[in-house]
Amino acid sequence: MSMDFNSLAQQFTEFYYNQFDSDRTQLGNLYRDESMLTFETNQLQGAKNIVEKLVSLPFQKVTHRITTLDAQPASQNGDVLVMITGDLLIDDEANPQRFSQVFHLIPEGNSYYVFNDIFRLNYSA
Amino acid sequence: MSMDFNSLAQQFTEFYYNQFDSDRTQLGNLYRDESMLTFETNQLQGAKNIVEKLVSLPFQKVTHRITTLDAQPASQNGDVLVMITGDLLIDDEANPQRFSQVFHLIPEGNSYYVFNDIFRLNYSA
Repeated sequence: MSMDFNSLAQQFTEFYYNQFDSDRTQLGNLYRDESMLTFETNQLQGAKNIVEKLVSLPFQKVTHRITTLDAQPASQNGDVLVMITGDLLIDDEANPQRFSQVFHLIPEGNSYYVFNDIFRLNYSA
Repeated sequence: MSMDFNSLAQQFTEFYYNQFDSDRTQLGNLYRDESMLTFETNQLQGAKNIVEKLVSLPFQKVTHRITTLDAQPASQNGDVLVMITGDLLIDDEANPQRFSQVFHLIPEGNSYYVFNDIFRLNYSA
């Protein structure tokens, strides 16, 4: 892994949202049995449960637009922490919804998997 | 450490924002030399640099209001990942600003310190 953590975070996040927006049934490769997803108030563990949840979300078309993307090394082991804020365009809704998401990525061979994933919509107060 | 990660995350976050809002010169105890802060587009490392940055922020009065708080174990070592979304009330401004923040907390003795801290205001698109 010669890539710095900022490049890794950027490439991972673009890949993740492109995959999510084109065919989210294929996201399972990015999670492992120990991976955790908090999606709004739902908590899931394991690649299978996580993908089932993501696939079950009640929309057909979705587009993630990144507003901010920040990364930091999360340990000496090559782990990377990424926080994204952005907009979510769902089906034919006119107004995007703002979201915040954090990924904790762990190196595995020549790639990374998602250990922690926390997603929240940012409703207006 | 008999506390579960959700309780720890909640207690830490309340303590952190209370301290920030009452006297942010005292936040240095929560960081170490290896700690990192991303505050908007600024990147800092080390307790001293981080506190200098936080103290230098151009407001006198500030109140953090938590909207959502989600936590997950970040490793087998007792590390905890916390993502917060909320509102920031600054000085006498009428409108709160929305923010997102993530903390990666690492256990040390009977307490925790902040290893990663990423803060972003959520501007409207």
